[in-house]
Amino acid sequence: MTRSKKAWGGRFKKETARSVEEFSASIHFDKKLYRFDIEGSIAHARMLAKQGIIAKSEAAAIVTALESILNDIEKGKISFSIADEDIHMALEKELMRRIGDIGGKLHTARSRNDQVVLDVRLFLRAETENVLMLLQKLQTRLIALAKKEIKTIMPGYTHMQKAQPVLLSHYLLAFWEMFGRDAARFGDCKKRFNLLPLGAAALAGTGLPINRSATAQMLDFPDVTKNSMDTVADRDFIAEFIFAAAVTMMHLSRFCEDLILWSSDEFGFVEISDAYTTGSSIMPQKKNPDIAELVRGKTARVYGDLVSVLTLLKGLPMTYNRDLQEDKEPLFDAVETTKNCLGIFTEMLGEIGFDRDKMLRAALGGFSQATDIAEYLVEKGVPFRQSHGITGKIVAYCIKNKKSLEEMTITEYKKFHNSFADDILDRIIPKKMINARRHTGGTATKTVLARIREIEKETGK
Amino acid sequence: MTRSKKAWGGRFKKETARSVEEFSASIHFDKKLYRFDIEGSIAHARMLAKQGIIAKSEAAAIVTALESILNDIEKGKISFSIADEDIHMALEKELMRRIGDIGGKLHTARSRNDQVVLDVRLFLRAETENVLMLLQKLQTRLIALAKKEIKTIMPGYTHMQKAQPVLLSHYLLAFWEMFGRDAARFGDCKKRFNLLPLGAAALAGTGLPINRSATAQMLDFPDVTKNSMDTVADRDFIAEFIFAAAVTMMHLSRFCEDLILWSSDEFGFVEISDAYTTGSSIMPQKKNPDIAELVRGKTARVYGDLVSVLTLLKGLPMTYNRDLQEDKEPLFDAVETTKNCLGIFTEMLGEIGFDRDKMLRAALGGFSQATDIAEYLVEKGVPFRQSHGITGKIVAYCIKNKKSLEEMTITEYKKFHNSFADDILDRIIPKKMINARRHTGGTATKTVLARIREIEKETGK
Amino acid sequence: MTRSKKAWGGRFKKETARSVEEFSASIHFDKKLYRFDIEGSIAHARMLAKQGIIAKSEAAAIVTALESILNDIEKGKISFSIADEDIHMALEKELMRRIGDIGGKLHTARSRNDQVVLDVRLFLRAETENVLMLLQKLQTRLIALAKKEIKTIMPGYTHMQKAQPVLLSHYLLAFWEMFGRDAARFGDCKKRFNLLPLGAAALAGTGLPINRSATAQMLDFPDVTKNSMDTVADRDFIAEFIFAAAVTMMHLSRFCEDLILWSSDEFGFVEISDAYTTGSSIMPQKKNPDIAELVRGKTARVYGDLVSVLTLLKGLPMTYNRDLQEDKEPLFDAVETTKNCLGIFTEMLGEIGFDRDKMLRAALGGFSQATDIAEYLVEKGVPFRQSHGITGKIVAYCIKNKKSLEEMTITEYKKFHNSFADDILDRIIPKKMINARRHTGGTATKTVLARIREIEKETGK
Amino acid sequence: MTRSKKAWGGRFKKETARSVEEFSASIHFDKKLYRFDIEGSIAHARMLAKQGIIAKSEAAAIVTALESILNDIEKGKISFSIADEDIHMALEKELMRRIGDIGGKLHTARSRNDQVVLDVRLFLRAETENVLMLLQKLQTRLIALAKKEIKTIMPGYTHMQKAQPVLLSHYLLAFWEMFGRDAARFGDCKKRFNLLPLGAAALAGTGLPINRSATAQMLDFPDVTKNSMDTVADRDFIAEFIFAAAVTMMHLSRFCEDLILWSSDEFGFVEISDAYTTGSSIMPQKKNPDIAELVRGKTARVYGDLVSVLTLLKGLPMTYNRDLQEDKEPLFDAVETTKNCLGIFTEMLGEIGFDRDKMLRAALGGFSQATDIAEYLVEKGVPFRQSHGITGKIVAYCIKNKKSLEEMTITEYKKFHNSFADDILDRIIPKKMINARRHTGGTATKTVLARIREIEKETGK
Repeated sequence: MTRSKKAWGGRFKKETARSVEEFSASIHFDKKLYRFDIEGSIAHARMLAKQGIIAKSEAAAIVTALESILNDIEKGKISFSIADEDIHMALEKELMRRIGDIGGKLHTARSRNDQVVLDVRLFLRAETENVLMLLQKLQTRLIALAKKEIKTIMPGYTHMQKAQPVLLSHYLLAFWEMFGRDAARFGDCKKRFNLLPLGAAALAGTGLPINRSATAQMLDFPDVTKNSMDTVADRDFIAEFIFAAAVTMMHLSRFCEDLILWSSDEFGFVEISDAYTTGSSIMPQKKNPDIAELVRGKTARVYGDLVSVLTLLKGLPMTYNRDLQEDKEPLFDAVETTKNCLGIFTEMLGEIGFDRDKMLRAALGGFSQATDIAEYLVEKGVPFRQSHGITGKIVAYCIKNKKSLEEMTITEYKKFHNSFADDILDRIIPKKMINARRHTGGTATKTVLARIREIEKETGK
Repeated sequence: MTRSKKAWGGRFKKETARSVEEFSASIHFDKKLYRFDIEGSIAHARMLAKQGIIAKSEAAAIVTALESILNDIEKGKISFSIADEDIHMALEKELMRRIGDIGGKLHTARSRNDQVVLDVRLFLRAETENVLMLLQKLQTRLIALAKKEIKTIMPGYTHMQKAQPVLLSHYLLAFWEMFGRDAARFGDCKKRFNLLPLGAAALAGTGLPINRSATAQMLDFPDVTKNSMDTVADRDFIAEFIFAAAVTMMHLSRFCEDLILWSSDEFGFVEISDAYTTGSSIMPQKKNPDIAELVRGKTARVYGDLVSVLTLLKGLPMTYNRDLQEDKEPLFDAVETTKNCLGIFTEMLGEIGFDRDKMLRAALGGFSQATDIAEYLVEKGVPFRQSHGITGKIVAYCIKNKKSLEEMTITEYKKFHNSFADDILDRIIPKKMINARRHTGGTATKTVLARIREIEKETGK
Repeated sequence: MTRSKKAWGGRFKKETARSVEEFSASIHFDKKLYRFDIEGSIAHARMLAKQGIIAKSEAAAIVTALESILNDIEKGKISFSIADEDIHMALEKELMRRIGDIGGKLHTARSRNDQVVLDVRLFLRAETENVLMLLQKLQTRLIALAKKEIKTIMPGYTHMQKAQPVLLSHYLLAFWEMFGRDAARFGDCKKRFNLLPLGAAALAGTGLPINRSATAQMLDFPDVTKNSMDTVADRDFIAEFIFAAAVTMMHLSRFCEDLILWSSDEFGFVEISDAYTTGSSIMPQKKNPDIAELVRGKTARVYGDLVSVLTLLKGLPMTYNRDLQEDKEPLFDAVETTKNCLGIFTEMLGEIGFDRDKMLRAALGGFSQATDIAEYLVEKGVPFRQSHGITGKIVAYCIKNKKSLEEMTITEYKKFHNSFADDILDRIIPKKMINARRHTGGTATKTVLARIREIEKETGK
Repeated sequence: MTRSKKAWGGRFKKETARSVEEFSASIHFDKKLYRFDIEGSIAHARMLAKQGIIAKSEAAAIVTALESILNDIEKGKISFSIADEDIHMALEKELMRRIGDIGGKLHTARSRNDQVVLDVRLFLRAETENVLMLLQKLQTRLIALAKKEIKTIMPGYTHMQKAQPVLLSHYLLAFWEMFGRDAARFGDCKKRFNLLPLGAAALAGTGLPINRSATAQMLDFPDVTKNSMDTVADRDFIAEFIFAAAVTMMHLSRFCEDLILWSSDEFGFVEISDAYTTGSSIMPQKKNPDIAELVRGKTARVYGDLVSVLTLLKGLPMTYNRDLQEDKEPLFDAVETTKNCLGIFTEMLGEIGFDRDKMLRAALGGFSQATDIAEYLVEKGVPFRQSHGITGKIVAYCIKNKKSLEEMTITEYKKFHNSFADDILDRIIPKKMINARRHTGGTATKTVLARIREIEKETGK
C-alpha cells in the first residue's frame, strides 16, 4: 500500500510520516486476531445483505473472498506489513485487492471502534475456554494425586513453622479449591463480555437499518450491548480477565513457593523429574526447580499487565481514545503466560515424587501435637486458655530436656495437670490427630475422601 | 494488660519487646471489626454449647457478656490499647475480665486464623450491601438526569475530537451501564466470600466435635468453606473486592475527567454548584471542580491498594503467614474511598447544570455530520469506502473555504458526487442524525427512552 | 543441539521435556544481548590468558572465533533456536562448533549468573547513552520552540481553569526542567550499575586466580562490584532504570494530555501536521492526535514493567533464582517504549503549529487578571486576605453583569475599594501582568529569555 | 470557622456542602506538616519585610505569633477540625485570630500551590536524614555481626539449592552493599528536591518584588527552582523518594525471606529471641518469626504507595490539579513504613542467634564442592566444559552410591579422570574452598576482612 492511500485519507494532504506508521501500527500484535476479524466480518456482511443494505450477491462475494483469505493466512500465504496499520485495515485491503469496490462495502455501518472490540470479545471467548480447560486438567491432576497420596502425612505449616500434621491430599485439595474459584471468576467475566458490540459504530450507532440481533445470533452471542458509547469506551472485560489471570497466577506462585522449598536439601519432600528441572552452567551438582521458579516469576508479569491496563483506563475521557490500542499487548501476554504456566505446571505435577517417609518424620517434629494436647485437656473440662497455657509449659519443658512430646511419660504429663491419663500418648499419634478432624473441611482421611467423591460427582467423573 | 500475660505466652520466657508490640499490633485498624468479631463469637459460643463442648450456662454467660461489651463499645465506654495486639485478643481479654475463666472457653475449637477471616467476611458482606446501595443511588440519579435531559444534544467525542452528535441522555446511560457491571462484579465477589470459614481453626480443623453448618446458619451463610488449609490461606476475596472497587473508581475517574473538561471555560458545558466547588487561596476568580479532581485522584489510591494486596499474596507459602495482617488496611481504604467517592459524586451530580445551548452549538461544529453524509451516499449505492473518501474531500473543501457542512449548497455537494439531492441538507440536522440511530444501543430519542423504560422495569421503578 | 547434550547435563539422566525447553528458553528475547555477551567474553578470555589460566594461543583462538561469530550474526548468517536455551549457551555452542574443545575453556571462572548481569549492564550502559541523547534532542527542540514563541501569550491553567496568563515559552521550559531531571536520574542510575560484575561466578567468586580489575579496564568499567553474593542477586539497577523511564513517560503523558486538549475544537490552540495525525475508518472529518494519545497510553506500559520487576524481586531468597530471568522483557520493553516515545514526540513537536491569536484571546478570558488586581490592592496597603476577598466580589459582579475585568470602568472598580486608581486598567493587560513576574522562575519575558540563555550556556550551545 | 468564611470565598454565594468539606479536607493528614509550614511562613514573612512588601513590624508580629502557635501545637494546646480544610488554612486562621488583619498579609506573594510543595520538601529533607541514619545503623549492625561471625561457614544457595559454601559474614556484607546503594539513592533524590519552590505562587510567579534567594538562604536551600509552572506541577521527588523506599523494603523483604526460612525447623540456622517473636492463639508450641513476616508483608504496602503516586500523576494536565492532594498519604505511609521496618529489623538483628554447627553441617551437604572439583580439573588443564561434565558424572555416582563427595576415595575419583591426585580431598574442605575465593568480592576470609576494614575506613569508624 502506498502511504497516501490510507482508507481514511480523504481530507489529508500530507502523507503519514514513516516513523508515525511504525510507531502507531498494531499489525505486529493484532494480526493474532485475524480469525476473529474475518469471522466477525462474515457475519456483518450477511446481516447487511439480510437487511438489504448491500446486495445478497455482494455479501456472497465478500464472504467467499474472506473465507479464501482466511484459508490463505492459515496456509502462511499472506504476510502483513507495518503499512497495513492494523489487522482490520490489512484484511480490508486484501479483500479489495481480490474483489475490488464491492469489498469497500463491507465497512458499511461499522467502525474500527466497534470492530476491534468485537474481535477482542471473540478472542477472549475462545481463550476463556482454553483457560478453563487447562484449569480443569490441573484440577483433575490434583484429584488423581490426592487419591494416590491419601495415606501420606505431612506437616502443615503456618509462619513456615510446623503447626499440625495434615494429609498431603488435604494440602492438594486446598489448591483444588483455589483453582475452582479461578474458574468461576473466568466464567463470571465471560457473562459480562459475551455480548455483541457491533452496531455501536464509531460511538453513536449508525443511521443505516442494521439488525444487531441477527449478527449476534450468527456469532453466537446471547445478547447485544445496550449503549453504543459505552460499547466503544468499555475495556472492563480486559481488566477483569487479566485480574482473574493474576489471581490464578498468584495461586500457582504459592504452590511453586512450596515446591521450591520442598525441593531443597533441607526439606527434601519432593523430587522433580530430570525432565522438569535444569542444571547449572558452573555447578555440576545442581538440579534446579526452574519451572516452579519461572512460574512464580511470571506471576509478576501478569501483575504488570493488570497495572498497565488499569492505568491506561484511568481518567480517559469518553469514548474511544487511541490510548486504548495499548490494551491488547498486556491482554495477549496475560493469556499466553497463564496458559503456558497452567500447562507446564500440570505436566510437572505429573513428574513429582513425594518422599513420604521424610514428610512423615517431619510431621512428628516441631511439637505439632501441642494443639491436640490442649484440646485433650479441654475435653477434660479445662478452659481452652488454661489448657493452652499448660501445653505451652510442657513444650518449654520438652525443649529444655530435649524430648519430643511423644517421648514424655505419663508421669511427666501428670506433673503439668492431673487430668492427663494413659490415653494421652495414643491421642498424639499423627494419624489419630488427623482423623480426629473430621468435620467438613477438616483433614481427616474420611473427610478428605468424601470431598474427593463430592468433587468427582460434581464434575461428572 | 501487662506484657508478660500474652494469651499465647506459655512457652515464652522473655517479654515481647515494646517496639515489637507497637510494630506488630493491628488493634489501631482492626478494631473496626469489633461488631463482626462479637457477632461471630456469639454464634461460635452457641454452637459449642449446642454440641456439648461447653456447658449451656457457660455459653449463656459468654453471650450475655459479649452483648454487654458490644453495647459498651458502641457507647464509647471501652477503648483499646496497643498492648491488646488485635481486636480478637482485646475482646477476649475484656470478656475474661468480666466473667473470668469461663471466658477462656470461648476460644475452644477456634484459632485467630479462622476467626479473622470470619470477621473480614462479615465486614465485607455488610460493606458490599453499602456499596451496592450507593451504586444504585448513583444509577437512579443517572436515570433521573437522563429523563430530564432527553432533549439535550451534545457532541460525542472520540480522540477528544467531535465525532457525531448524541443525546446527553445517551451519554449518561453509558455510565449507567458501567455502574451496572460494577454492581454485578461486587455481587459475583460476594458469591465467593459468603461462606463460613470458622472451623478451619489454625489450618487443619479441630478434633473437637464442632458443627459448622449450625454456625453457618446462625450467621446466615448459605454454606461452609470446603478445605481448612485453603480457608486460612485464602485472601482472594479481598483482592477481588478491591479489584471491583478499582474498576468502579476507574469509571468514576472517566466521568470526572469529562466533567472537569466540561467545566473549563473552553467547553463550558456544565456549571457545578458553589456548594460542590472550591476557590483558590490566591486567585479570587477561581471556581474549581475539586470534587471531580479528587475523585479522579483517589482512583490512584484504590489501584495502589490492589497492587498492595496482590503483591502481598504472591509467592506466600501455605498456609497462614503473618504478612497477611497487611491485607486489612488496603481493604478498609478501598472500601472507604469507594463509598465516599460514590456518595459525593452522586450528590454533586444533583448540583450540576448543563448549558444546553452551548452543547448544541458545539454539536454542530467539527463537521460531525460527515459520517451521515457518507452513509447518505451508501444509501444511494456508493460503496462505503468510496463515500468515505468523497466526504473527506468535502470536509477539506469546507475547511479551505471556511464553511460548515450545513452551509454548503446543493450545487456544491453535487460537485463531489451526483447522487446528492435536496434532502441532504435536511439529513444533517443533528436531531435527525440522532434519531436515525434507532437500533438497540443507538442514540435515537426513542431508543434511549425505551432503554430508560427497560431499566425502570428491571429495577422495579 | 540434540536435547541430551545440555552443557550442564552431566548428572542428568532424563532429557529435558520439549515443553520445558520452550517454556524456560530466553533465547527469543535475550538474543538482543549478543553483542554485549561477545564483548564480555572477549575481555574475559583475554583476562584468563593474562592470568595464565588459559594459554595465550587459546585466548587468541577464542577471540578470533567470537569476532567472526559477531560478524556473522550482524550479517544475519546465524539464527538461534529454542533448544539453545539462552544467548550465552547459544554463543558458546557456536564457539565450540567452530574451535572445538578450546571453546570449552571460555566459561572457566565464570557462571551464567555473573555473565548475564554483565551483559545487562553493558546493554544498559549503551541504552542509557541513547536515552540521554534523545532527552537532549527533545530539550533542544523545546529551547528552539521557546525562542520562536517568546511573544506568544497563553492562559496558564490550574484545575483546568484559566488562572493567569503566561508565556508559551515559559510553559515549554517547564518541560525542559522535567526532562532535565529525568536525564539526571538516568545518570545517577548509571553510577550504580556501571561496575564490573564478572568474577562473582555462581555466587561465591571463583578459586581460580582471576584479575577483575583487568577485565574491568578492558570493558571500561571504573570499578568492580564488591560482594559476589550481592552481585548475582542484585537487580536494583533494572528497577531503577525502569523507574527513571516511568517518570520520563509520565512527563511525556502530561505534555500529551495538554496537546490532546489543545487539539480539540474547543481549545484549538494547536494544529498537528497531517503527517503526525491519523484519520477515522468511519468519520471522514476526523484528524486525531494519535501520537499524543499513544504516548500517553504507552506510559501505562512502562508502569506495568516497573510493577513486574519490583514484584519479581520482593521476597526472593538469596542469591540467584530462576525468577530473575523475567527481569529482561520488562526492561527491554521499557527501553524500547521510552526511546520510541521520546523520538516520535520530538519529531511531532517540530510539526506543531500554535494558533497564537486563539491563545491570546483565551488568556484574556476567565478573569485571569484577578490575582493581579488583588496584588494591586496589596501594593496600596490592603492585607492580602482582604484584597483577595474584594477581588472575589468584583469577579462575582462581572459574572452577574456579563462583563470582563477589562471592561469594568474605574468608577465601578472604585465602588469595591477606594484605593483603585486609573492605573488599574493598564495593570491588567496580559503582557504587563506577565512581565511583572520577573523573579527567578517567573514568566516575565526577560526572565524566560535569561533562563534560555542560561540553559544554552550550560549545555554549551 | 463558620463555613461561609472560607478564605477563598469572595465570589461564592452558596456555602460549601458539609459533605464536600469532609471529602476534600486534608487536615487530618497534612497537619503532620505543621512544623514545616510554620518554618516556611516565618522565612516568607521575613523576606516580605526585607523586600519592603510588608512592614518590618508586621513581619515581627507574624513571626512572634507563628512561634507561639508552634509552641502551643507542640504542647497539644491546639487541635484542628475538618472545617479548617488543610494545615495551611488552619494555621493562617489561627494567626489571624491572634493578630487580626496583619495575619492576612502573610499570604502575600504566595499561593497554597507553592506553599504545599515547600512544606513537603522540608518534610522530606528531615525524613531523608532520618532514613539515612536508620540505614547507617543497620549497616553498622551488619558490620558488627560480620565481624562476630567471621568464622561461621554456611551454604550459599541459588535456586534454594545448596551451591557453594560461603562465610556468613560474606552473606551479611551482601546486604551491606544493598543498603549502601539505598542510601545513595535517597541522597540522589535529595539533590533534586532540595530547592526552594516558594515564589512560584499559583503557577506563574508573582508581580510583587520578592527575593527568592533570600528565602532560600533562610531555609537552607542551596538554590531555587527555575520555572514556576514546573514548580507547582512537579511531584517527581515524591515518586522518587517512594521508589527509593520501595527498593529498600525489597532488600529487607529478601533478608526476611531468608530469616523466615532459616527459622524453620528444617533449616534451623537461626533462633530469634522471644522478645522478637510471637506465639499462636491456638498452638502452644509456636514461636513465629512475625517481625520478619510483617516486614516482608509491608513491602507490598510501599509498592502500593508507589503505584498510587505514579498513577496519580499520569496524564495530569498542567499545572496544579486537586488530584495532587492525594500525593501526601502514600508518601507519609511510605516514610513511616520504611522507618519502622528499618528500625525494628535492626533491633531484631541484635537478637538473633546463629546455629553455627548446623550451618556448617548444611554447608557440607548438597555436593557443594562440585564447582571446586571442576576447577581443580581446569587447573590440571581440562577445559572447563569437560571438567563440568566429569564432575556431573561424579555427583550422579555419589547419589547412586549414597556417598558424599568427601567420602569418595582417590581411587574412585581417578576412575572419572586420571588428573585427580591425593590433594583433591584436601581441596574440598569448605574452609579451603572459601579461602580460595580471594579476589575482590570473593568470600575468602581475608577478602571479607579487607572489605570490612575498607568499609570502616570509608565510614570513619
